Amino acid sequence: MRKEELYLLKKGKERLDWAEKHAKVLSTVAKEMKEKQSLRGLKIGMALHVEAKTGLLALALHGAGADVRLAGCNPLTTDDSVAFALKEEYGLPVFARKGETREEYYQNLNSVLDLRPHIVIDDGCDLITLLHTERRELLPNLKGGNEETTTGVLRLKSMEKAGALAFPVIAVNDAKMKYLFDNRYGTGQSTFDGIMTATNLLIAGKNFVVAGYGWCGRGIAMRARGMGAKVVVTEVDPVRAIEAHLDGFEVMPMEKAVRGADFVVTATGNRDIITKKHLRFIKNGCVLANAGHFNNEINLGHLEEMAEKCFEAKEMVKGYTLKNGRTVYLLADGRLVNLAVGQGHPVEIMDMSFSIQARCVEYIVREGSNLKPKVYPVPKEVDEEIARLKLKTLGIKIDKLSKIQKNYLSSWKEGT
Amino acid sequence: MRKEELYLLKKGKERLDWAEKHAKVLSTVAKEMKEKQSLRGLKIGMALHVEAKTGLLALALHGAGADVRLAGCNPLTTDDSVAFALKEEYGLPVFARKGETREEYYQNLNSVLDLRPHIVIDDGCDLITLLHTERRELLPNLKGGNEETTTGVLRLKSMEKAGALAFPVIAVNDAKMKYLFDNRYGTGQSTFDGIMTATNLLIAGKNFVVAGYGWCGRGIAMRARGMGAKVVVTEVDPVRAIEAHLDGFEVMPMEKAVRGADFVVTATGNRDIITKKHLRFIKNGCVLANAGHFNNEINLGHLEEMAEKCFEAKEMVKGYTLKNGRTVYLLADGRLVNLAVGQGHPVEIMDMSFSIQARCVEYIVREGSNLKPKVYPVPKEVDEEIARLKLKTLGIKIDKLSKIQKNYLSSWKEGT
Amino acid sequence: MRKEELYLLKKGKERLDWAEKHAKVLSTVAKEMKEKQSLRGLKIGMALHVEAKTGLLALALHGAGADVRLAGCNPLTTDDSVAFALKEEYGLPVFARKGETREEYYQNLNSVLDLRPHIVIDDGCDLITLLHTERRELLPNLKGGNEETTTGVLRLKSMEKAGALAFPVIAVNDAKMKYLFDNRYGTGQSTFDGIMTATNLLIAGKNFVVAGYGWCGRGIAMRARGMGAKVVVTEVDPVRAIEAHLDGFEVMPMEKAVRGADFVVTATGNRDIITKKHLRFIKNGCVLANAGHFNNEINLGHLEEMAEKCFEAKEMVKGYTLKNGRTVYLLADGRLVNLAVGQGHPVEIMDMSFSIQARCVEYIVREGSNLKPKVYPVPKEVDEEIARLKLKTLGIKIDKLSKIQKNYLSSWKEGT
Amino acid sequence: MRKEELYLLKKGKERLDWAEKHAKVLSTVAKEMKEKQSLRGLKIGMALHVEAKTGLLALALHGAGADVRLAGCNPLTTDDSVAFALKEEYGLPVFARKGETREEYYQNLNSVLDLRPHIVIDDGCDLITLLHTERRELLPNLKGGNEETTTGVLRLKSMEKAGALAFPVIAVNDAKMKYLFDNRYGTGQSTFDGIMTATNLLIAGKNFVVAGYGWCGRGIAMRARGMGAKVVVTEVDPVRAIEAHLDGFEVMPMEKAVRGADFVVTATGNRDIITKKHLRFIKNGCVLANAGHFNNEINLGHLEEMAEKCFEAKEMVKGYTLKNGRTVYLLADGRLVNLAVGQGHPVEIMDMSFSIQARCVEYIVREGSNLKPKVYPVPKEVDEEIARLKLKTLGIKIDKLSKIQKNYLSSWKEGT
Repeated sequence: MRKEELYLLKKGKERLDWAEKHAKVLSTVAKEMKEKQSLRGLKIGMALHVEAKTGLLALALHGAGADVRLAGCNPLTTDDSVAFALKEEYGLPVFARKGETREEYYQNLNSVLDLRPHIVIDDGCDLITLLHTERRELLPNLKGGNEETTTGVLRLKSMEKAGALAFPVIAVNDAKMKYLFDNRYGTGQSTFDGIMTATNLLIAGKNFVVAGYGWCGRGIAMRARGMGAKVVVTEVDPVRAIEAHLDGFEVMPMEKAVRGADFVVTATGNRDIITKKHLRFIKNGCVLANAGHFNNEINLGHLEEMAEKCFEAKEMVKGYTLKNGRTVYLLADGRLVNLAVGQGHPVEIMDMSFSIQARCVEYIVREGSNLKPKVYPVPKEVDEEIARLKLKTLGIKIDKLSKIQKNYLSSWKEGT
Repeated sequence: MRKEELYLLKKGKERLDWAEKHAKVLSTVAKEMKEKQSLRGLKIGMALHVEAKTGLLALALHGAGADVRLAGCNPLTTDDSVAFALKEEYGLPVFARKGETREEYYQNLNSVLDLRPHIVIDDGCDLITLLHTERRELLPNLKGGNEETTTGVLRLKSMEKAGALAFPVIAVNDAKMKYLFDNRYGTGQSTFDGIMTATNLLIAGKNFVVAGYGWCGRGIAMRARGMGAKVVVTEVDPVRAIEAHLDGFEVMPMEKAVRGADFVVTATGNRDIITKKHLRFIKNGCVLANAGHFNNEINLGHLEEMAEKCFEAKEMVKGYTLKNGRTVYLLADGRLVNLAVGQGHPVEIMDMSFSIQARCVEYIVREGSNLKPKVYPVPKEVDEEIARLKLKTLGIKIDKLSKIQKNYLSSWKEGT
Repeated sequence: MRKEELYLLKKGKERLDWAEKHAKVLSTVAKEMKEKQSLRGLKIGMALHVEAKTGLLALALHGAGADVRLAGCNPLTTDDSVAFALKEEYGLPVFARKGETREEYYQNLNSVLDLRPHIVIDDGCDLITLLHTERRELLPNLKGGNEETTTGVLRLKSMEKAGALAFPVIAVNDAKMKYLFDNRYGTGQSTFDGIMTATNLLIAGKNFVVAGYGWCGRGIAMRARGMGAKVVVTEVDPVRAIEAHLDGFEVMPMEKAVRGADFVVTATGNRDIITKKHLRFIKNGCVLANAGHFNNEINLGHLEEMAEKCFEAKEMVKGYTLKNGRTVYLLADGRLVNLAVGQGHPVEIMDMSFSIQARCVEYIVREGSNLKPKVYPVPKEVDEEIARLKLKTLGIKIDKLSKIQKNYLSSWKEGT
Repeated sequence: MRKEELYLLKKGKERLDWAEKHAKVLSTVAKEMKEKQSLRGLKIGMALHVEAKTGLLALALHGAGADVRLAGCNPLTTDDSVAFALKEEYGLPVFARKGETREEYYQNLNSVLDLRPHIVIDDGCDLITLLHTERRELLPNLKGGNEETTTGVLRLKSMEKAGALAFPVIAVNDAKMKYLFDNRYGTGQSTFDGIMTATNLLIAGKNFVVAGYGWCGRGIAMRARGMGAKVVVTEVDPVRAIEAHLDGFEVMPMEKAVRGADFVVTATGNRDIITKKHLRFIKNGCVLANAGHFNNEINLGHLEEMAEKCFEAKEMVKGYTLKNGRTVYLLADGRLVNLAVGQGHPVEIMDMSFSIQARCVEYIVREGSNLKPKVYPVPKEVDEEIARLKLKTLGIKIDKLSKIQKNYLSSWKEGT
């Protein structure tokens, strides 16, 4: 093995080991699944961000008896050291590279599907879409799938509505133990890890615009304030806009927000959040980053069209000097800044999300034949089990309802 | 009129005027309802905390053509000046007094029901319960009702489940424009208004225990931190417990929490949050307050039983010296501290909640005959209208989805 | 005694008892002073805000053997119940009434001086100024004085600089154990107590302008944010302005700030913070309050001049409708909002400040003859003693430097 | 040039360019100095953390006509790409490498001194100590020096006290525009950049112990809370301990704090903050990091002595499995975590600190012959100039005192 490869292998193994030590819930779940061999004979195709925590999930499924293949779900978020270690050390077939072309990306998804999986685990719904378009021949094999993220769930619900969905999919994203923590505290922290690493710029005192006040957006806004920024929120939903307002953030349309913006981070799950009409007014020096699933929240076409000069300002930072003389800086080509620059969500966060994933795979194995080709919520008992396990690994005890209290809650006659 | 009455009248009128000036959404709604006379001929029985903002709602309904009677929904939360001004200045029949006995309280509810109302507006479900028990003869008149608070909705759902509910009730509490703001920011702020007025004690640096991490509890916890306290949260729900933990609060069982507590505020909607088993260990000097609907969250019987001495320490503060020599202080006899001591939720909060109330009364008038005896959510369009109106009165503009964006959100084929 | 007086007496006694229970440092100091009779034969003239905590200080000095007289230091900040109880229950000569005219105010200061005090305790320097102007005949009796507040210390330093100061004065305000806590956390909390009680308005989401980013101003800004407001700071000092900016607050000139202001609170120690030139642009409905010592931070003359109509909007809230049709609301006639509306700083805060006061009186007794007519800092050992006592009453233990650490700190040779 | 060198050069140049674009104050100052050639003929020896912002300072001094040599001030904080680019692109003699041995480190300092500098710029006082011990022959050349950090200033004051200091040194650290921002917001942010990059662990919900509540410590504590941690502060100073307590942090001795610690970050400027007596009780899995100048805050000798096993857990993370079975993780060998792992303080922070540095070099050139061998504060006008420049580059305007206000502040007669 070449020196660079040895280094990659060592780094990847260390990151997997480190993650494993801090993923106590998933470790517990994985151990039990391994003992039961609950996935014996199952073929699983995965398209997730290929980094250490994802590696743990893949190994857990593999350890439970499944035949697993893994591709990335984004061309720029693979941790090459982890991908290499998964292949070399654990013999796991991984099809991913940081900085893939679009062609390579889809080729890799296809390689995963070549396994002829019974279950797919997707993040963003590209893999499932591929199955429903170019690889329809594989659909009969499918027992079901899991979807990790908001954007993917939205796409699946459109598919369901259009009558196009061919197998049952669990909306892992919508588990409380997922979106409440992964989307909020995970995205909140990792976005700043990415931005600080990429820019070495001060957050305190800055005008920090967050597009979208969903679970991800409010996590980012909360941490931006925690780092001392003045936060502006843009929204399309009036209730969320009022929430942002009463949380003490400025709320305004993006066209106005960009005029004073030192940073803009998009987290809407929608496209065209930053377009020509915003770039015209954007503050000189503004840093643009995206924390949403796809790289279309900041319209790259518009950016290139309006730019007179485009240059690499710094690793992972591209400068665009617009025709009006102002320069804006785009992080990680508008791809998920937390994964493309940093190491993604904190281990303890993915520990919860991926424990849900693992349990939902088991659920499909058990119940798949009873499920219709629909988007299903995560079973309540899975959410509750993971919550209990998480509390246990944290060493936190909580109160229990007494019989009297339970009765009280279900009665209506007791009043003033 | 006696001097004291003149003073009461002036004070009550001023409070009503002040509230009216700052309740811009409700004023808009009221004006429109008045023009339409949308409630002409309707009889409405109300049981709400009788204070300035409630006064506005009653006057709005009255102005829209309804015949209105108002009682309190808690024996200790009436603002006597407002009650007096409503009667004297506006001729509104009000049946409420701060410091009512239980008998007076129910007598007042009965007086409201003597109107033979078509619609009832309740807060905590005592009025509706009375209708379903001792005043069943009035049930045939009822088109429907509104319920303002979490506790009331819980009771109504128990009634519904037990097949006991006799007319449709709108769960006003569950409107986003209500619980997201009233329960969280309203309770958050007004609880501290009450505690500071009652105690003149420092919040910063104190061990501040919040029982319950629902919408009210998290509002209180957030503001406790905002005032510099070290916050401890107790919960029975594991997911909420993890949320509190990741929000940076200590989470532990109440039996442990009371040992270091300088303040305990209950906001669970359940009974027996503080009982003998907690009082045994409670820190000397601890201040107990309740922000939940009923005064049974802190078990007063247990408190009295364990006390060697009970004394009035200060207006609205009762001292209990326990047999172990420690003294605890109970605010407002365990009743809603924000209303019993302070002036209740900020005007702008009730502006939203009561605009929902007004619109829901109209909704029942319009749709009541199509509704079954069930608990109904607030119609989505009411929530949205009030949100839009609120943004408008705030002068806040937000983004709108473009056609392309709407299409994108409803399509599933566009991916990486 | 009339019924109203009995009520006043009860209320005042309760407030004094309550304060005494929560002022553990001062109680410790007072007990020791009483045992030693360390102030026997001393005459002390006090001009402080006459409320419960001040009462404790006066009683502590009295208990240590001194002959004490007490007046207010502001016409609108006297707690009449406490004043009454001090007189009736403890026989302490108090000369103060809430809502004094200017004449009464100075008459009361003169009554205090009629005692021919050896030591004066002042807050704002009116009493000491009176001594240096109209009551110079008393100067020979004076051993020294204490000054409680920033404004008073500034005036005294001007006197010193002008060669006008006739006796030594301890700048109690400048003790760490005073300004770090009283000015910051004390003012921060009590200002909101006052504003919420006076207005019942929502703080969350509001544009809250704080004038001055000194210790008081930053306390107010911190708590405004803690209550959910969007905070704007105005300053004249560039370094403080940058601090406010990096603390995440908007910084701008007052002329700009008032245009969007929902609240303006002044805490500068200077006059003319809000004048005609600001009122011209002020937002309709803006609430004005002052937390600085004198009521000249908001220029009342200008306000009246520009107003077309002036009306009592609510207890402690005066409305001014300007000629441009906008209305602004002034709390407590521009006097210290935390004392004129609320009950002043939390007990535990004044516990520290007044323990410093008590020890400084002893210090003057001991060292007065060695002191020159200058402004002196609080002796370091007093600051340290009170800090240690405060930690002790809190039950907080901290680390101690080891010998090795002490040596290390005083050596320079140990490096990389 | 080899491929690796070309990569280093490109990276280093980009980082310097990026820093230069965001260091607007220093750019302004540098431009003016260059025009004036204010340092013509001067020899300057520098020992600072060799990274992009330090590069800018060195280039600014060089541009102003000085002959400059640069070494590191810590063996693990050099950015090799910047060091390389400074040498190759700008011809600046740089003597530094990331991961120097102690011998190399001192050899590099000696190489800097071989320039026979007139002025030295030090960070931590190793260079100046070397001058006063082994290189005393150079002392006659010295006009003066600057010291960047708290630890260095402490050492210099010890030297001064011991009569050992041979030339005047400006305590750059003690400028308001330095310690208020660099120590607080700089350390606050960059410490988390370092910790998150090294560990990928969640901060929210963790027990985060900060040793020391000086300017650095409170910056770290503030940001730890901002990231959602539960913060514990340890202190030796009672006043600071009470500040931390009232800021809402837990305060306790380190021996107790380590028992629950998920993270411990030291920022005291003292040695032996974590020793055997703490390690005995430390929580399994605890992450240890240092943000103080020297790597003796965590006693590495004790750590090795108590460890049964020591292993590289991850890049920049060393695991120590203690004899009691618990494992602790040490970041960056106990060296400054923000520089050894991350890219150091944000650019805009060093912009202020290094502008002060540049101006103080000019000050020594101008005034050095009038200065004695003492530790001098930064001249007030330098602080003020940099503050004004900073506000200007931020585009922030502030209020100015009117004549009336100035008079008022200097008068004492105007009162109630």
